[in-house]
Amino acid sequence: MPVRLVAALALLAAGTLLATGPVSARQPRPISLIVTGGIVVTMDAGFRVLSPGAVAVDGTTIAAVGTPAAIAEAYTAKETIDAAGHVVMPGLINTHTHAPMVMYRGLADDLALMDWLQKYIFPAEARTLTPAFVRVGAALAVLEMIQSGTTTYADMYYFEEEIARVTRAAGMRGVLGQTIIEFPVADAKTPADALARTEAFLQEFARDPLITPAIAPHSMYTLDATSLLRARDLAIKYGAPILIHVAETEDEVRMSRGRFGRSPVGYLDSLRFWGPHIVAAHGVWVEPDEIALLQRHNVAISHNPESNMKLASGTAPVPAYLASGIAIGLGTDGAASNNDLDMFEAMRQAAFLHKLVSKDPQAVSARAALEMATIGGARVLGKQASLGSLETGKLADLIVVRMNRARHTPMYDPVSHLVYVTRGDDVASVVVNGQVLMRDGRMQTLDEPAILAAARAAADEVRKAVTP
Amino acid sequence: MPVRLVAALALLAAGTLLATGPVSARQPRPISLIVTGGIVVTMDAGFRVLSPGAVAVDGTTIAAVGTPAAIAEAYTAKETIDAAGHVVMPGLINTHTHAPMVMYRGLADDLALMDWLQKYIFPAEARTLTPAFVRVGAALAVLEMIQSGTTTYADMYYFEEEIARVTRAAGMRGVLGQTIIEFPVADAKTPADALARTEAFLQEFARDPLITPAIAPHSMYTLDATSLLRARDLAIKYGAPILIHVAETEDEVRMSRGRFGRSPVGYLDSLRFWGPHIVAAHGVWVEPDEIALLQRHNVAISHNPESNMKLASGTAPVPAYLASGIAIGLGTDGAASNNDLDMFEAMRQAAFLHKLVSKDPQAVSARAALEMATIGGARVLGKQASLGSLETGKLADLIVVRMNRARHTPMYDPVSHLVYVTRGDDVASVVVNGQVLMRDGRMQTLDEPAILAAARAAADEVRKAVTP
Repeated sequence: MPVRLVAALALLAAGTLLATGPVSARQPRPISLIVTGGIVVTMDAGFRVLSPGAVAVDGTTIAAVGTPAAIAEAYTAKETIDAAGHVVMPGLINTHTHAPMVMYRGLADDLALMDWLQKYIFPAEARTLTPAFVRVGAALAVLEMIQSGTTTYADMYYFEEEIARVTRAAGMRGVLGQTIIEFPVADAKTPADALARTEAFLQEFARDPLITPAIAPHSMYTLDATSLLRARDLAIKYGAPILIHVAETEDEVRMSRGRFGRSPVGYLDSLRFWGPHIVAAHGVWVEPDEIALLQRHNVAISHNPESNMKLASGTAPVPAYLASGIAIGLGTDGAASNNDLDMFEAMRQAAFLHKLVSKDPQAVSARAALEMATIGGARVLGKQASLGSLETGKLADLIVVRMNRARHTPMYDPVSHLVYVTRGDDVASVVVNGQVLMRDGRMQTLDEPAILAAARAAADEVRKAVTP
Repeated sequence: MPVRLVAALALLAAGTLLATGPVSARQPRPISLIVTGGIVVTMDAGFRVLSPGAVAVDGTTIAAVGTPAAIAEAYTAKETIDAAGHVVMPGLINTHTHAPMVMYRGLADDLALMDWLQKYIFPAEARTLTPAFVRVGAALAVLEMIQSGTTTYADMYYFEEEIARVTRAAGMRGVLGQTIIEFPVADAKTPADALARTEAFLQEFARDPLITPAIAPHSMYTLDATSLLRARDLAIKYGAPILIHVAETEDEVRMSRGRFGRSPVGYLDSLRFWGPHIVAAHGVWVEPDEIALLQRHNVAISHNPESNMKLASGTAPVPAYLASGIAIGLGTDGAASNNDLDMFEAMRQAAFLHKLVSKDPQAVSARAALEMATIGGARVLGKQASLGSLETGKLADLIVVRMNRARHTPMYDPVSHLVYVTRGDDVASVVVNGQVLMRDGRMQTLDEPAILAAARAAADEVRKAVTP
């Protein structure tokens, strides 16, 4: 509650919290968009569900959430989305992916992480990665993410400025990290080159309304201490988030212990790596006593259950993370290791996986999974004051989810259905920053046929690259 | 190969294997249906994939599988399905469900099996189960199964004759088991009543082209030895399959060891329970040395990964089952514990789960998952001679799967996509026994709006039943 109060006051200070309540105006106030008639799952602190409900959007911001009648009385909008029979909820937040890797999905499966990276992914990347290829891959990924209800994503890749431009043009929100890695890659010959690229990237996208530029040192096993600390220093200098893979596989732990005598988290701690705000992807092999340490240093966890299962990486201690109160969200990881960007699948998998592994069917409930994919993800990205729930004054990132197929029938509990039977394809409409990006399944900002055609053409280059 | 030869000879003897090869006729032979232009994933012994390919259907049977040109030269059809850009494959076989339980999906989640059964499912069933309610639930389930590409399913429930009639009317195939359970249920006051019902059911549906009537003793923990053996005797008398839950939870094992001093499999063996053909659902808590015993007694395994995860039941030893050569297929379980009937999800989950638990990303490959859902499922139901792959002389049960969305792009390997990115909603067309049940997403034999409306009305009865 105090956190929310502080957030509300911050929004007031920024002038984005509207003084008018939903029913106070006599004359309906003209606004940009009303989404009305659906079951509104707000994901606010009270886990309020309005059935039916409505959301009023004024420009980039949520003006009010209320009953359809109250919203209709208080507001009149240029555009209305009828959500009757559907669910309206905050857009999903994918806390870890590598967007352009959609271009490598299904290229090689059923391999362990290190084999898969070294035999297929790194060679394919070495031969295909150009700014143009990254633009095609990013457009395909952004298309898939919008179609499946993701409104904000955290990314780690190369030529991240291209990804940022594609994302901004599509109207989607991203916390996008330029990769820094020890070996020569397509966009940088050395870590020093990569750090220079990153600094230019941080400057180019500073104060962008949709893009939060970030620093993405790949991992403790692909960077030396000097590069890791330079990445941290850049984060401090620009107040930028760090995105990094942490303790993903047992191989990483073995390597870390062999080389440094410490676990990956212990090694990073020994370096005083911790910048102002870090998103640790995976966090599979984290010891119980390391969780408090991470929390103390403002490290958030991105849990990627499908990738961890498919690559046989292990099971992250998610019930312990949840019990600790550390910020934890969900990610799909890149589509090359998942093989899609569907956050509904990530939710379902998080619920299923931890019930099984904990031998406790309550370990991760439907509600807990939904929280991780929305307000939890917002906390992970440091954006809980403006994203992750449908509340007056927050940014207008929301989705409308169909609930009308045989698979959804009957419906006793929309939260159960959102986690256990919904797929990304059920998403009908998507709004980001107040702009409608998809309406009744039709893309508004992206040319879907052109993107698919470009991706198919680019796939021919990938085929050539991995053919011996 | 000898097995396939025997099967082919059996089909020849039955007059269903056509003497004409695909390219031998000079005049195109008139047949009922050609599905052409798609990537045909045959699931035959050679794992043949034709890209592009075509399937010729003559009445209820596959006349030929070949290139589009060869099929066009040899056959002319009243009806054609253009599958260009899509995958054509055998219909999926769901080896374990409780169809009408779709009416209870999402009614209560995040509970252990015994709690869930005793606090919600058994009371709801006690108050709502009537023949009319079962018809509504079965129609909803059959609709959902057809829409998601399942063409044959194995079922265990009450009023199974109602389920059989609904299934037959929809044109779908089922191995349907009338339940026998110790306590009084809606369709039988005693196990003796249930056995009498079962015998009448076996007689009513004997020699039905779509329905194989079966006997469904619920489990070793809900039936005494006398009832179990009477069920077995009925199976012997009618040559009917037995469907039974076996070793699903640790609770069941503890109870079995406490009461009988043996594991569930050991106890059933001590009774000489084994009938001519048994489908054991779950088989989670089966010891390594019990697998050979099951195999020797012609027991097949239905693996239900999603249900086992959601109910925290445990992980079946699937890599050991696969290595043993025992018949193993996939099931969704009832939608009350899954919460849907999507066999693509079951495939993906089988692949993901066993990679993780075995710490081996090759434990269950995409191909192995696809085999379990098709030809493996056919073996489980004793129908591998007529179902489970697209081959000349087999019954014409096939599906057309869309591969044209962002999520499917690009496509390097259709088998990878079928397991790792396809959902039931990607299914465009469904053919069972040569009849088109869904065409380009439109139901041909079922009135979808009427079924959904009836299910929503019946759900009100369920709500009342569980409201204290």
